[in-house]
Amino acid sequence: DILGHNLKQASQRLTWNKSPKSVLVIKKIQDASLLQPFKALCAYLMEENNMIVYVEKKVLEDPAIVNDENFGSVKKKFYFIICLGGNGTLLYASSLFQGSVPPVMAFHLGSLGFLTPFNFENFQSHVTQVIEGNAAIILRSRLKVKVVKEFREKKATLQNGIEENGVLPAGLEKDSNRLMMHYQVLNEVVIDRGPSSYLSNVDIYLDGHLITTVQGDGVIVSTPTGSTAYATAAGASMIHPNVPAIMITPICPHSLSFRPIVVPAGVELKITLSPEARNTEWVSFDGRRRQEICHGDSISITTSCYPLPSICFRDPVSDWFESLAKCLHWNVWKKQNHFTEEEEEF
Amino acid sequence: DILGHNLKQASQRLTWNKSPKSVLVIKKIQDASLLQPFKALCAYLMEENNMIVYVEKKVLEDPAIVNDENFGSVKKKFYFIICLGGNGTLLYASSLFQGSVPPVMAFHLGSLGFLTPFNFENFQSHVTQVIEGNAAIILRSRLKVKVVKEFREKKATLQNGIEENGVLPAGLEKDSNRLMMHYQVLNEVVIDRGPSSYLSNVDIYLDGHLITTVQGDGVIVSTPTGSTAYATAAGASMIHPNVPAIMITPICPHSLSFRPIVVPAGVELKITLSPEARNTEWVSFDGRRRQEICHGDSISITTSCYPLPSICFRDPVSDWFESLAKCLHWNVWKKQNHFTEEEEEF
Amino acid sequence: DILGHNLKQASQRLTWNKSPKSVLVIKKIQDASLLQPFKALCAYLMEENNMIVYVEKKVLEDPAIVNDENFGSVKKKFYFIICLGGNGTLLYASSLFQGSVPPVMAFHLGSLGFLTPFNFENFQSHVTQVIEGNAAIILRSRLKVKVVKEFREKKATLQNGIEENGVLPAGLEKDSNRLMMHYQVLNEVVIDRGPSSYLSNVDIYLDGHLITTVQGDGVIVSTPTGSTAYATAAGASMIHPNVPAIMITPICPHSLSFRPIVVPAGVELKITLSPEARNTEWVSFDGRRRQEICHGDSISITTSCYPLPSICFRDPVSDWFESLAKCLHWNVWKKQNHFTEEEEEF
Amino acid sequence: DILGHNLKQASQRLTWNKSPKSVLVIKKIQDASLLQPFKALCAYLMEENNMIVYVEKKVLEDPAIVNDENFGSVKKKFYFIICLGGNGTLLYASSLFQGSVPPVMAFHLGSLGFLTPFNFENFQSHVTQVIEGNAAIILRSRLKVKVVKEFREKKATLQNGIEENGVLPAGLEKDSNRLMMHYQVLNEVVIDRGPSSYLSNVDIYLDGHLITTVQGDGVIVSTPTGSTAYATAAGASMIHPNVPAIMITPICPHSLSFRPIVVPAGVELKITLSPEARNTEWVSFDGRRRQEICHGDSISITTSCYPLPSICFRDPVSDWFESLAKCLHWNVWKKQNHFTEEEEEF
Repeated sequence: DILGHNLKQASQRLTWNKSPKSVLVIKKIQDASLLQPFKALCAYLMEENNMIVYVEKKVLEDPAIVNDENFGSVKKKFYFIICLGGNGTLLYASSLFQGSVPPVMAFHLGSLGFLTPFNFENFQSHVTQVIEGNAAIILRSRLKVKVVKEFREKKATLQNGIEENGVLPAGLEKDSNRLMMHYQVLNEVVIDRGPSSYLSNVDIYLDGHLITTVQGDGVIVSTPTGSTAYATAAGASMIHPNVPAIMITPICPHSLSFRPIVVPAGVELKITLSPEARNTEWVSFDGRRRQEICHGDSISITTSCYPLPSICFRDPVSDWFESLAKCLHWNVWKKQNHFTEEEEEF
Repeated sequence: DILGHNLKQASQRLTWNKSPKSVLVIKKIQDASLLQPFKALCAYLMEENNMIVYVEKKVLEDPAIVNDENFGSVKKKFYFIICLGGNGTLLYASSLFQGSVPPVMAFHLGSLGFLTPFNFENFQSHVTQVIEGNAAIILRSRLKVKVVKEFREKKATLQNGIEENGVLPAGLEKDSNRLMMHYQVLNEVVIDRGPSSYLSNVDIYLDGHLITTVQGDGVIVSTPTGSTAYATAAGASMIHPNVPAIMITPICPHSLSFRPIVVPAGVELKITLSPEARNTEWVSFDGRRRQEICHGDSISITTSCYPLPSICFRDPVSDWFESLAKCLHWNVWKKQNHFTEEEEEF
Repeated sequence: DILGHNLKQASQRLTWNKSPKSVLVIKKIQDASLLQPFKALCAYLMEENNMIVYVEKKVLEDPAIVNDENFGSVKKKFYFIICLGGNGTLLYASSLFQGSVPPVMAFHLGSLGFLTPFNFENFQSHVTQVIEGNAAIILRSRLKVKVVKEFREKKATLQNGIEENGVLPAGLEKDSNRLMMHYQVLNEVVIDRGPSSYLSNVDIYLDGHLITTVQGDGVIVSTPTGSTAYATAAGASMIHPNVPAIMITPICPHSLSFRPIVVPAGVELKITLSPEARNTEWVSFDGRRRQEICHGDSISITTSCYPLPSICFRDPVSDWFESLAKCLHWNVWKKQNHFTEEEEEF
Repeated sequence: DILGHNLKQASQRLTWNKSPKSVLVIKKIQDASLLQPFKALCAYLMEENNMIVYVEKKVLEDPAIVNDENFGSVKKKFYFIICLGGNGTLLYASSLFQGSVPPVMAFHLGSLGFLTPFNFENFQSHVTQVIEGNAAIILRSRLKVKVVKEFREKKATLQNGIEENGVLPAGLEKDSNRLMMHYQVLNEVVIDRGPSSYLSNVDIYLDGHLITTVQGDGVIVSTPTGSTAYATAAGASMIHPNVPAIMITPICPHSLSFRPIVVPAGVELKITLSPEARNTEWVSFDGRRRQEICHGDSISITTSCYPLPSICFRDPVSDWFESLAKCLHWNVWKKQNHFTEEEEEF
């Protein structure tokens, strides 16, 4: 195992084949408040733990860091990842790994997020516990998404100019008729009407069968991890990330009876414009790579075989309910005795 | 005006024709924590303000009070009402007045309620302001409900024995075939399946036309005041009490598409068992007078011409939004920037 | 009364001071399927009823009509309006009248809409009944909206070039610092995040008090008429158009507890960007006049004193419940007896 | 394998080790309309297929059947089960098997139900296909529920009299202090306030940790199969029965922010009265065995290791979406183009 980690799924505990020797630290850039935590963390990893610390080139190019002699050359393999930032930093980290992902330890610098369970205070003891293999892991399923776009006359630009120095970027494939893009998604794929004033009008296929048509602002296909993000705002029930499932949630549907549904992780979804759609749709992946979808294009979605191993602060259950309470104020109420509070003495 | 009050509806300010001379104090009984506030309040009204204080006979019969020489005989007229208790105490106060209601000043002894805006701390200054006519009023609409029950063989007991000392209690009428009961309701009329495991099955008529049939746990017909009570729990939007409307909210309806509706205050609703209903229903009024409804019975509901004038702590708007925040934690959230918190720097 | 109509609000019946002599026919243009109904309707009005028929210039300029000698010059006054099209045609008709609106008779050519109760089959008898004053009217409240936009350096273009031939278009006012726009809205004002991936972040004031902040996709301020349009998709309860109220509905709010609210028709709302908003917002009025809103701009909304008198097919109650059933499939269900259908025989 | 069936979970196809020789036919009793189908079915199974048909004693005792010489003695083993009735008949069938369940083929005699995919018309070909092993299977997870009731003075009656002829009925255990009851549940466990006017007040533990307290009408713990029954009426998202999960849905919660949640199938839930609960609760299992729960009692719920193998009409995906459409009218809508239907031509 190149990555030097081994996830025992049954126990869902982090176990190291040999003690970790390197770590990738992902830091939100252009955020001055993160500099001091970042440097303290790196010093701790390198000096106290003799680890090799990897950071992204653009982090190293930050003038505030480039002049600091402690940051050396970047190598290609690492044992685990540390994220400094918010949920967005973790989503970014996920997008860097289109295949297998090393375990991720995510600190929230501000307030707790669903994806960032560790607070930075006392980071030393938290990091030490992880290095010692003393931590629970949750495997967060990701969605494997394939977008197929047909070349069309008016889209000729697509056909040319996507190569960088004559090479297609990672995740892209091309043949004479079509461009194919691949994404790994941790939260959700959103298809919406974009700036159009027309309703979204998309068909959803499951294992090849048309199951429904969405008319409304759009539709969200999310992992259980994503069920507590945009899908929650759109009215979905909240699903623990250990449930192997995919959630389909309409956004402001025209139909009174279009309730969200939850289907097994194993299915294959395909989404296209409805034949009668008047306008194009817009699709994004974890809020990124927003692009237009036209008649003839399609979006295929399945559960990825590359989940993201997320290191727990306590354990998968406690962390989730803690986030429900702190991030969503789930089931906050004022104690009372009856709805209409009839007092029986009267 | 016997009651000595005059509500200028336009300005919705409390104005006294002459300074108020008497007050009805309504107190939840069998609650030891209320005794001290009750006595302090009465002393203040009688000694500092020379007012006649009326209390209900059963309050006076409380041994803790009956031996207190400050509490004299009860008279029949009063200028306004003071409530000590919770929402339930106010609902009880409402039920005492099947006709015109004097203005009500409601203290919450524990936490703020939608119906009890005044806190008891500094009660003297609050009461003085009311006596001086320095207070806003909100006219809370009530529902006038008529229940018509047919006499049936197996219900012969209904026909007899309802008289107390040969006299029908207030609100009851009887002829040879039917018993009619009248209620004034401040929050809501609830019709539900009671202990039956069968679904509720009731027909709703509006101005004589069948508008829908309810299948589910039941249905709530509420005032705007009641829209923030049980109806909210059943999923209704929340209506400010100044909106002249009646809300119809299904309880756990079998139909995905049965959304609550809001109809104008002027309509007449009638609810009966559906012809195909297998079981009886149960009806209650502000959580009280729970009773069975059978085939042939009916419940007629209109907006009452006797609203309840509720004295505001600040004004109708501020009080309502304060209650939404404090009682229902309406729109509590953690600040964040995007659903998926993509950070643009990446 | 120039418009020759007189709405007796109490009875809400259409009454003519004198028999109507003219009518404005509004037709969706560029829809070939409407040509034949349009010509048949005009022939009926002019030849059978001796009425003057007015149509918009652009309708007359349609080559399919311009060569038809039956269509003469357009005059400035008319007794009532006939709409041929869908809900959108009626919304367009509403937007033509920033002041008082003549009664509107709206035909649906395809399927029934909330705003288009008449079917075109047998249009002669329907039109005759209206001309004879034999029809119910519902006064649909509209929202009066004022948008105030500050001139900013980067928006200098706003300051210039809005005059057409040196004259500001109707509904616009300008001073040295600000541009003011006025709209009459029949369904709703929508404020949303537009193409931004950041959450909406707007403050809502009611009668000058900040009542809440919206974080999410946006917010809908609607009339009761609009409560069955976009607001329904966003989860609102449905309000009969005779209820004097304004509905505030969040679109995919970040907060679990942000339920829609209904406030009295008399209030004044103001909406601005929150001080911490990172992005601008976009506002539209009945789906039209979409524009950007920046820090410093504001949107003020009150109930207009110019409602739209809509001629009923049957009456305000029957028409509304018919539309709930036909347009929204409200409370459609399969009859069943219990949720879990235990059969008692077992 | 005594039951003579073997479920290949991967392919989820019904496969017989040897051709089935016997079948249990479960019929709703006291329903005259079922007699003819029942007899036709039995004739077909026995005469055309040489199978041994088992029916319950009470079915055989029906005078309409007892005098029919075709019905012989009942034996103890069978290959599969045929249900004639509605969803309730299948729930009853499930309750007969507290351990392993043979495959169930369920006919709806009236309209399609989620649990009864086969229509009776052409029953011969449907039955033949099943006998030939030409059918898909879905394993519907069940909940294993243990209710522990403390003996209390006022409940002394519990301690005595539960034996039937000195023997505890199946599913009951007793020691000196407690009575334990075991149930297998296919749809849901419902805990509600019963006839009490007080709110439900129960604590929910997950793997030993208190995760939340429910205040409201009650709470539903359901399988994915049950997510389309009562839970749907209470606002839950709908979960395909192949998702290994347990759903927790509040019934009319007092809290605006109490959204349903979905947890992994492997967890152990425990529900008790909250210490501050003023009243008892009532619990039922698939709508059956309704009983009171008091302070000190507990309800433990896990996923059962005995799912119910349900024979599909087509396949697990098609059958489910067919039921969503036919039973719940999921996502029924009238085609339209935009929410406010602005027509761009104007």
